[in-house]
Amino acid sequence: MADHQTQSRKADHIRICLEEAVQCETVSTGLERYRFRHCCLPELDRCDLDLTTEFLGKSLQAPLLISSMTGGTDQAKHLNQCLAAAAQRHGLAMGVGSQRVALEKPEVIPTFTVRNQAPDILLLANVGAVQLNYGYGVDQCRRLVDMLEADALILHINPLQEWIQPQGDTNFRGLLGRIATLCTQLPVPVVAKEVGNGISGVMAQRLLEAGVAAIDVAGAGGTSWAKVERARAQTPLQHQLGTTFGDWGIPTAECLTAVRAIAPQVPLIASGGLTNGLDAAKALALGADVAGLARPFLVAASQSEDHLEAQVQLLLAELATVLFCTGVPRVRDLAQAGVLETRG
Amino acid sequence: MADHQTQSRKADHIRICLEEAVQCETVSTGLERYRFRHCCLPELDRCDLDLTTEFLGKSLQAPLLISSMTGGTDQAKHLNQCLAAAAQRHGLAMGVGSQRVALEKPEVIPTFTVRNQAPDILLLANVGAVQLNYGYGVDQCRRLVDMLEADALILHINPLQEWIQPQGDTNFRGLLGRIATLCTQLPVPVVAKEVGNGISGVMAQRLLEAGVAAIDVAGAGGTSWAKVERARAQTPLQHQLGTTFGDWGIPTAECLTAVRAIAPQVPLIASGGLTNGLDAAKALALGADVAGLARPFLVAASQSEDHLEAQVQLLLAELATVLFCTGVPRVRDLAQAGVLETRG
Amino acid sequence: MADHQTQSRKADHIRICLEEAVQCETVSTGLERYRFRHCCLPELDRCDLDLTTEFLGKSLQAPLLISSMTGGTDQAKHLNQCLAAAAQRHGLAMGVGSQRVALEKPEVIPTFTVRNQAPDILLLANVGAVQLNYGYGVDQCRRLVDMLEADALILHINPLQEWIQPQGDTNFRGLLGRIATLCTQLPVPVVAKEVGNGISGVMAQRLLEAGVAAIDVAGAGGTSWAKVERARAQTPLQHQLGTTFGDWGIPTAECLTAVRAIAPQVPLIASGGLTNGLDAAKALALGADVAGLARPFLVAASQSEDHLEAQVQLLLAELATVLFCTGVPRVRDLAQAGVLETRG
Amino acid sequence: MADHQTQSRKADHIRICLEEAVQCETVSTGLERYRFRHCCLPELDRCDLDLTTEFLGKSLQAPLLISSMTGGTDQAKHLNQCLAAAAQRHGLAMGVGSQRVALEKPEVIPTFTVRNQAPDILLLANVGAVQLNYGYGVDQCRRLVDMLEADALILHINPLQEWIQPQGDTNFRGLLGRIATLCTQLPVPVVAKEVGNGISGVMAQRLLEAGVAAIDVAGAGGTSWAKVERARAQTPLQHQLGTTFGDWGIPTAECLTAVRAIAPQVPLIASGGLTNGLDAAKALALGADVAGLARPFLVAASQSEDHLEAQVQLLLAELATVLFCTGVPRVRDLAQAGVLETRG
Ligand SMILES: Cc1cc2nc3c(=O)[nH]c(=O)nc-3n(C[C@H](O)[C@H](O)[C@H](O)COP(=O)(O)O)c2cc1C
Ligand SMILES: Cc1cc2nc3c(=O)[nH]c(=O)nc-3n(C[C@H](O)[C@H](O)[C@H](O)COP(=O)(O)O)c2cc1C
Ligand SMILES: Cc1cc2nc3c(=O)[nH]c(=O)nc-3n(C[C@H](O)[C@H](O)[C@H](O)COP(=O)(O)O)c2cc1C
Ligand SMILES: Cc1cc2nc3c(=O)[nH]c(=O)nc-3n(C[C@H](O)[C@H](O)[C@H](O)COP(=O)(O)O)c2cc1C
Repeated sequence: MADHQTQSRKADHIRICLEEAVQCETVSTGLERYRFRHCCLPELDRCDLDLTTEFLGKSLQAPLLISSMTGGTDQAKHLNQCLAAAAQRHGLAMGVGSQRVALEKPEVIPTFTVRNQAPDILLLANVGAVQLNYGYGVDQCRRLVDMLEADALILHINPLQEWIQPQGDTNFRGLLGRIATLCTQLPVPVVAKEVGNGISGVMAQRLLEAGVAAIDVAGAGGTSWAKVERARAQTPLQHQLGTTFGDWGIPTAECLTAVRAIAPQVPLIASGGLTNGLDAAKALALGADVAGLARPFLVAASQSEDHLEAQVQLLLAELATVLFCTGVPRVRDLAQAGVLETRG
Repeated sequence: MADHQTQSRKADHIRICLEEAVQCETVSTGLERYRFRHCCLPELDRCDLDLTTEFLGKSLQAPLLISSMTGGTDQAKHLNQCLAAAAQRHGLAMGVGSQRVALEKPEVIPTFTVRNQAPDILLLANVGAVQLNYGYGVDQCRRLVDMLEADALILHINPLQEWIQPQGDTNFRGLLGRIATLCTQLPVPVVAKEVGNGISGVMAQRLLEAGVAAIDVAGAGGTSWAKVERARAQTPLQHQLGTTFGDWGIPTAECLTAVRAIAPQVPLIASGGLTNGLDAAKALALGADVAGLARPFLVAASQSEDHLEAQVQLLLAELATVLFCTGVPRVRDLAQAGVLETRG
Repeated sequence: MADHQTQSRKADHIRICLEEAVQCETVSTGLERYRFRHCCLPELDRCDLDLTTEFLGKSLQAPLLISSMTGGTDQAKHLNQCLAAAAQRHGLAMGVGSQRVALEKPEVIPTFTVRNQAPDILLLANVGAVQLNYGYGVDQCRRLVDMLEADALILHINPLQEWIQPQGDTNFRGLLGRIATLCTQLPVPVVAKEVGNGISGVMAQRLLEAGVAAIDVAGAGGTSWAKVERARAQTPLQHQLGTTFGDWGIPTAECLTAVRAIAPQVPLIASGGLTNGLDAAKALALGADVAGLARPFLVAASQSEDHLEAQVQLLLAELATVLFCTGVPRVRDLAQAGVLETRG
Repeated sequence: MADHQTQSRKADHIRICLEEAVQCETVSTGLERYRFRHCCLPELDRCDLDLTTEFLGKSLQAPLLISSMTGGTDQAKHLNQCLAAAAQRHGLAMGVGSQRVALEKPEVIPTFTVRNQAPDILLLANVGAVQLNYGYGVDQCRRLVDMLEADALILHINPLQEWIQPQGDTNFRGLLGRIATLCTQLPVPVVAKEVGNGISGVMAQRLLEAGVAAIDVAGAGGTSWAKVERARAQTPLQHQLGTTFGDWGIPTAECLTAVRAIAPQVPLIASGGLTNGLDAAKALALGADVAGLARPFLVAASQSEDHLEAQVQLLLAELATVLFCTGVPRVRDLAQAGVLETRG
């Protein structure tokens, strides 16, 4: 695919995610089926609350990830820099969007590189796993990581999106072996991530056996890439595929419990449809170490830096409220028994 | 019943199915309760996908059946020829509507005969099973098959429709025995099929013991023949019976699991309320060998050949999408464990 | 209560049941949770269907009861005579409304007496059980039966209605004993019946131990007497009680299964919210011997004799349709296993 | 917090509870899942019904509590006096709102003191448990009780409200110990009470171990204090916290069953979302000894004394109706087995 196509696609994605109805409708994250058990006597003060955590060897001030979104255009550069500054201010993790275009067209590298704004954060490089079948190897991946001074590389795995989008890359043959090779050779950890259709327990197991260091389930219930691509469809057939498969995927909550069941210790990111800090806290209580949000950060950042700052503060306050009202002082302990319940 | 009545009834059916609200409302196919388990790493390329299957000894390019619908009028002839041409182009199976009128009025035979358009397809003759009580025997059935150069004969079994329609044939006594006799004597296989109220596990067992070679469950959730006949009612009582029994029947998904449970190997067609390739794939994953659709093909064919072609291509693309995103290369393997799940 | 009050109350009841929204809303009969298992090959003809049954020693042409409704006014007389004529024409059972007024005011006796119109039917006298605490004994009850030439006496038991209505009779003390005495002394069988709040398994047991010969569950889901009395409220408090308790009671379907469980053989009438022959058939399949309907007959009879005749024919046709499409030739056999299923 | 702030907050609360949408929406009390088993033959007369009970050593004419609401302003004084007069007339229990302001600003004491109007009732003093961390000890609490001539002291525990409200008191450290000390030293019993988010079984256990004499679960489903404080928010963040946590908490019905399971004998108050006497009766049948209502009394009292009187009479009539129609003569026996059922 030509570079300018990739760029215009990136611009499309931002616009569509902001302006069109691309959220899942008949499938939800499943988080609404859970409820925290209120603790009327938390035996805590505000200052006892501890949102810090560790992930992939770095400290976070809160278990929040600004999920991989963008890069490659001027608007993307601006967004990435805002997001990175917010991540740095608040000690959050951050990912950038797929960096493929940056290898193909080096002049857009600065639209991704945010280390200056964010010297201390856990920063995650990003590329589609399927590119390992389209010319990418350890060298390319290393360049993506180096370009960003990233702490880890996210391989996003998006078969449905590739399938539906015009000229998508649909050769997913033998990817698991190539991921395994990459994991042994790349100097930083590899994170396997979906983009909104979820990673099942079975697939998580295979990915972990292949050597990935962490999983981001990126489940169904939030931004639907089938619907995003529907908005970009070039033929009626693509459009109708986007409709038929707009709510395809495994709900985020179900991914989390399934992955946690097969891999109790694996570093685990929850994303896909988390809308606020209460959702994030539920995801953490279901076993995630970090909660990733994409669209909520995009919406705020595209308004202004102040909106983004307010959004981050709200998320932190919501997380703190959950800790206070469940009587759990440390966010790392939210997954203990008896804190989250299924609704009666 | 006089011939012209049969003909005008056929024309009515087409018009009513296209223009009036005759879909089930308070009962659904039950397929919406299932969800495919997304496979983020399918290890497949587009070209690895194999939609082919075998059914009743013939190869199909895809496990799709254009369900029995029409014949007997000029419009029906046109529709049948379009449908047959599409089936031939794409290697699908096809059935024609009840051929009773063609025996009674030979000049309408050409409205059914589509072998010229479709030399290679699995082609299914059709007559109401109840006619075995109204003068039909193996000779008549053989003539229906021969007239069509059909590969098999569908006996549709429609007690509710006969009951509700004006002058319906309601003597269903001793039919099982007559079906058994027919099965031993007819040179082609006999398929037992409902028309939208479903075949239970118990009835499937009896039909198989009688010697039918295949079952088409034709369950509830799609076109409701009680509602179609309500639209043709000649008395208030008929009209109200159509209302009371408009949602009668066993949902398609329940028929499939019940029939598969008692007959793990029987050639099995799923029909009744399948609206797209995702529904069809779910029906296959529940154990059907072939998915039959009536109304969706009728709607498309009645618009234009291009619409019909687009409809077929969409169904094929939807089936392929399911294969790709479940990581199951061959449509014949969709029914394996772990592919379809009940929604959480 | 003065006689003319009783009479005007009766007129009110008819008007309110016809004109106001007095059906249950948040509670339903529970019959909608069941579905008949469609039988595609019934092996029956129309003439094989047998709707006849026996109840309390009399033959019925169909297991239908025109439930106890009215008497005491000119309009009531007209309704009763229409209903009785229809019952006679079709061999149905029929009850009249509470005959208390007829003892107090003999000139209204002719508004109840329908034996002339219906020499052969199972005819049921009716009085409130609570009257046994307000001066009624075996003599009065015998006069009610004799006046009607009735085959049995229904004692309706309506604590909620009495409680809510202006000047209701709320002394229900020691009634069970008085019912027991009555049962030993009255020459005809006694039927215990609610009026829309249902009879539980426990209460049915007690009533049977007291000697009643049959039970009419008259459960929740249809006409709500709390709502009827709300429409007649004389104070805001009565009105609000009618609202709070408008959906009180045990759903008809639950009453039936509970009573059948404790008394497998007792003659059992289902009433309360049955709207058509499909509901009636479900009630029979749950174990009732006879299905009683009040409001549907009232609505039809208040329009015209033709409407009433059409209503009866529709009910019979609906019952027959169920028999045909379940392959059960005799309505008495509807309760056998495998005919009715809970919806999946 | 300055005194006048407390006062204006109290005025705000009344106004907001009366005028704005501050009821829970996506969470309900859970009482709607239960239904009383109708008893068609109660064997009771109106005069057999006994609504009396005992609670904390005092007799009540009915198991109803006018829940703690207000004080500190002129309007509050008027409301408290109306409510107290009604409580006295009908022998109900009553609580006043938090008395903190009365210690800080002695001139408002008369807005709380209602003993003159209500010499005989069970009267409950009220203060936030968290004040034990903000300078309150046994002396202050004793003064609150004495000021009111109260029979007991309610400690309300409201972590979510304190957390969300401007300048809330959020130091809940070590409260359990301080509550324990208070319980040993205060001459009257201490009642632990939430304000609408519920007390879990686990927390009830701890509170009882600390020595509290009774529990008021004050569960979710009614007035939501997060929503009340949202209406008073001074910043967008507070407002959004109010939205996110507006439906936080454990439904009242679930609190009741959980607390009853761990403490079969503890004096137990049900409050939180009870809207009428049928709800109250369900709460009693789930094991509560007394049912507390806040908003319904507030709405009535703010209209007129007549409205309040009508409201009380309606509640009593509704309770009596439940007794009559379940055949349970004494309200104290509503919790016996077989009276309340889960809806089918
Ligand atoms: C505008 C936009 C662009 C995205 N681009 C990428 C991407 O390049 N790489 C990736 O791994 N995920 C990408 N995602 C997916 C998110 O990282 C995330 O997994 C998923 O969308 C859930 O996000 P939600 O919070 O919007 O539901 C993108 C999401 C959005 C909204
Ligand atoms: C217009 C029309 C005519 C039909 N005629 C017949 C028929 O003659 N014989 C038959 O076996 N089924 C007939 N069917 C039933 C279908 O083959 C099928 O079993 C059932 O309607 C499910 O179709 P659906 O996909 O429309 O829900 C007809 C359906 C339609 C829509
Ligand atoms: C207008 C009217 C009057 C009624 N009067 C009586 C009555 O006098 N005695 C009685 O036992 N039931 C009476 N009922 C109750 C019915 O017999 C029946 O048990 C119950 O209402 C269920 O009827 P439904 O079919 O309207 O839901 C009356 C019902 C109606 C609609
Ligand atoms: C206007 C108002 C003021 C309240 N103030 C207090 C209070 O000061 N102390 C307290 O313990 N509970 C207070 N509550 C809470 C109630 O006592 C009760 O626990 C809860 O709101 C359930 O009430 P509901 O019936 O309105 O749902 C107040 C409630 C209302 C409506």
